[in-house]
Amino acid sequence: MNRERLYLFDTTLRDGAQTAGVDFTLDDKIAVAQMLDRLGVDYVEGGYPGANPTDTEFFARPRTEKATFTAFGMTKRAGRSAANDPGLQGVLQAQAGACCFVAKSWDFHVTNALGVTLEENLESIRETVAASVAAGRETMVDCEHFFDGYKANPDYALACARAARDAGARWVVLCDTNGGTTPEEVADIVGRVAEVVPGKNLGVHAHDDMGLAVANSLAAVKAGARQIQGALNGLGERCGNANLTTLIPTLKLKPDFSDRFEVGVSDEALAGLSSLSRAFDELINRPSNRYAPYVGANAFATKAGIHASAILKDPRTYEHIAPDSVGNHRRLLVSDQGGKSNLLSELARVGVEVDKSDPRLDRLLAEVKAREAQGYAYEGAEASFALLAKRALGRVPDFFTVESFRVMVSRRRDPLGGQITVSEAVVKVTVDGEPLITAAEGIGPVNALDLALRKDLGRYQPFIAQLRLTDYKVRILNGGTDAITRVLIESTDGDGEVWTTVGVSPNVVDASFEALTDSLTYKLLKANAPAP
Amino acid sequence: MNRERLYLFDTTLRDGAQTAGVDFTLDDKIAVAQMLDRLGVDYVEGGYPGANPTDTEFFARPRTEKATFTAFGMTKRAGRSAANDPGLQGVLQAQAGACCFVAKSWDFHVTNALGVTLEENLESIRETVAASVAAGRETMVDCEHFFDGYKANPDYALACARAARDAGARWVVLCDTNGGTTPEEVADIVGRVAEVVPGKNLGVHAHDDMGLAVANSLAAVKAGARQIQGALNGLGERCGNANLTTLIPTLKLKPDFSDRFEVGVSDEALAGLSSLSRAFDELINRPSNRYAPYVGANAFATKAGIHASAILKDPRTYEHIAPDSVGNHRRLLVSDQGGKSNLLSELARVGVEVDKSDPRLDRLLAEVKAREAQGYAYEGAEASFALLAKRALGRVPDFFTVESFRVMVSRRRDPLGGQITVSEAVVKVTVDGEPLITAAEGIGPVNALDLALRKDLGRYQPFIAQLRLTDYKVRILNGGTDAITRVLIESTDGDGEVWTTVGVSPNVVDASFEALTDSLTYKLLKANAPAP
Repeated sequence: MNRERLYLFDTTLRDGAQTAGVDFTLDDKIAVAQMLDRLGVDYVEGGYPGANPTDTEFFARPRTEKATFTAFGMTKRAGRSAANDPGLQGVLQAQAGACCFVAKSWDFHVTNALGVTLEENLESIRETVAASVAAGRETMVDCEHFFDGYKANPDYALACARAARDAGARWVVLCDTNGGTTPEEVADIVGRVAEVVPGKNLGVHAHDDMGLAVANSLAAVKAGARQIQGALNGLGERCGNANLTTLIPTLKLKPDFSDRFEVGVSDEALAGLSSLSRAFDELINRPSNRYAPYVGANAFATKAGIHASAILKDPRTYEHIAPDSVGNHRRLLVSDQGGKSNLLSELARVGVEVDKSDPRLDRLLAEVKAREAQGYAYEGAEASFALLAKRALGRVPDFFTVESFRVMVSRRRDPLGGQITVSEAVVKVTVDGEPLITAAEGIGPVNALDLALRKDLGRYQPFIAQLRLTDYKVRILNGGTDAITRVLIESTDGDGEVWTTVGVSPNVVDASFEALTDSLTYKLLKANAPAP
Repeated sequence: MNRERLYLFDTTLRDGAQTAGVDFTLDDKIAVAQMLDRLGVDYVEGGYPGANPTDTEFFARPRTEKATFTAFGMTKRAGRSAANDPGLQGVLQAQAGACCFVAKSWDFHVTNALGVTLEENLESIRETVAASVAAGRETMVDCEHFFDGYKANPDYALACARAARDAGARWVVLCDTNGGTTPEEVADIVGRVAEVVPGKNLGVHAHDDMGLAVANSLAAVKAGARQIQGALNGLGERCGNANLTTLIPTLKLKPDFSDRFEVGVSDEALAGLSSLSRAFDELINRPSNRYAPYVGANAFATKAGIHASAILKDPRTYEHIAPDSVGNHRRLLVSDQGGKSNLLSELARVGVEVDKSDPRLDRLLAEVKAREAQGYAYEGAEASFALLAKRALGRVPDFFTVESFRVMVSRRRDPLGGQITVSEAVVKVTVDGEPLITAAEGIGPVNALDLALRKDLGRYQPFIAQLRLTDYKVRILNGGTDAITRVLIESTDGDGEVWTTVGVSPNVVDASFEALTDSLTYKLLKANAPAP
């Protein structure tokens, strides 16, 4: 089978750096370049050397081993030579194997935003490419607003593309800068451009302003383009660039593409894609999109019992690919809508072995449903689910018993006339028959309770020394003053394991306390703490 | 201009209820149905009457005025008549104008998952549709796995579609249940089906497992289908359904579609789309996707200085549509320009008249920005925004002053060996210089504080006698123990007016108290209570 090579160009560190709320440090950039290199993309665009100190330093040395490290810049200004354009020279001095220059290709932009003549702009493209090629760099030109430009003045847009290619650019990249182009338009226009610049020299750079960046990239490939620009987790200006974590699995796993094309990402790297996507979100400190295609935590989740039982018979019934091919997992959510097959598969996943004919299973299922009707949600609280199951099977010792607690929040005037609020908690537990009373002050009532509870658990204290809370979520399940509150608490320990517990009550403090004590019990069980 | 009508079918409350992490209460469902009705979708699918108590109760009466309220169910079981199938009869008894039945159309599923013969399945489709039509319902059939089924056995998939149509179904909906179909395949297959069942009777139901749900829906329309199924904010099983908040603006604003088609969503409703999308996320208590096409907070944000200055010269340079057509705003992250005009339009909206040259406007703008940076969100809390604005303009009297409060939550053993939790609050306020001390017990700490605060406001008591809280939402803005908490409180009074206030603090009790006092002050202002 003779397949054509498609090239993947990653712009996470350049266009992705334009994402609102994202700021890369130098260390971030180095780490991301390494991730991308391991993934197997062909080009890693690192930023705009000369534009800011971070990017200049980033380009002080090569940062990739396999991928071509690529510097971004602008075509030279009209009215000065390439040699006398400091911006251009900055790009050419970067330690990069390739240079990618953005050029105007929409006549309206050339005359209105740039304020130069159409011919001057073509001249800038030609001279910039020539200078870059002469400097020994693989050269590409990002034709900004190409599709809008083509619609307004096809001859001029094509002249820009041809000027770049004729001057020696390896790639002419057609950019849908504003993200307003449909897949049909992309297919049509790429097809026409391919009559002037061969498809093997054409790339596409799509934005997601209509939710079509992935579709537009695929449409461009079908129409002849052989380079796709995109970003990890769809980072990029406004709504983002084409999402590489979505595109790569489609290109590698869907016969429509994999029969005709090959990419530089190996099957092994593909199997690491879900972790890579989540690690990248960790790095930029934002929650991962649980609903992301292929790599999201819910991408292979189902709560419908009827779907779950079909999946267990044959996964093809409700899975379009095998989840482990992208390093993801099937999740059959325990919920109101699920049945015994979901329950069994969830039990196996949280490490609870039980025979499927065990009569305690029916009681457990009934209890799960009854608790879900009260407001518990075990699909996001696997540690509480594991505890509930193990309790039903008689496998959870009473490490400690809570006798009572009290938490007080008081606001009063401080001596300067402002107001201060203080939260104090007192907790009384019994361990091995011995009463232990602890007290703590916290930022709020739950924090105070948490601190007091973890202050002294007697001989279990060493087991929980490294435990800390990493997230706390509150959901009010129905309106009004009799509202039921559901609290989810995420905890972690020194080993880096993370677990989530749930509590439900009309009283937010009660609900929080339940999730807190579940978290402690889960940790003690996990650490094999001796039963009393 | 003679445009064809496209029909929008919303499945937020049915397929969207399959979303991991989403659980609709009856009140949620009622509220969402009203949102959708106002938006102008043609069909609101409400759930599966008979499958669970919530859905059964939801269908006890009609829940929409303009949209066709639609019940979901399954085609009848093989081996029993329509009249003897309790599931089918449950659907037909629902107070719905339309019924949508899911039917297998992939031969592999019929024989393997369902375990019936291919002919028995066709018979189920025919009899179910006939029974529904006979019951006076507009009838549609969701052909599950249609595209996979067509690829495996086109004749059988077509036979299912034809059976539904021939039996009288208004709509035959082609479902990409597993989300693994590409736009080209969708276009090809819809085109072939349209030779058998006219396009005006065909719908499409796409899933986003490859990030192509929107593209597939558009491709189906181009190939002849005239109904699109989708969900608000792309809710739905696994990665979700086609996102209606993305599709609707594309259908209404992009000439490629708007020149040929019309939908039931008015320009005014379109201009409310961004708020609707965010209000829906508030309702299901999850953060809005800031990068969502059209409606995301960053959909028209730019931090590139060069793009920002071009936008100020001419918005078309970097905006594919006008942000206000979908009720969104331009955000130029490098400059505050445009902020003041946004503020003025918001002030007018909450009824605060102020001259645009008033110097206090700049201070107010700065304060709004500072507070939003702290975590306040005024978009969902107009009463607090109105108070903030009126305070900046010196128009809010200090009706009452809170001197101090104290709330205590204590859990102890009750005499029978169980545990009880008690919440008590004491609040001290000054009205007209007179100190008033009140105490109350509540279900939780916030309820106790609320009851104590509203127990005695001196001469203002008559004004707040009818006030009650109808909703209370808590969101943790960042993880860990130093988490900032945002509380939204919705209140109402005897007049049926509803207003929302916001409080922010690391302490949930403090944040709640702030929102409570804002709610009281807002009510006193609204009732023209005399200043002290």
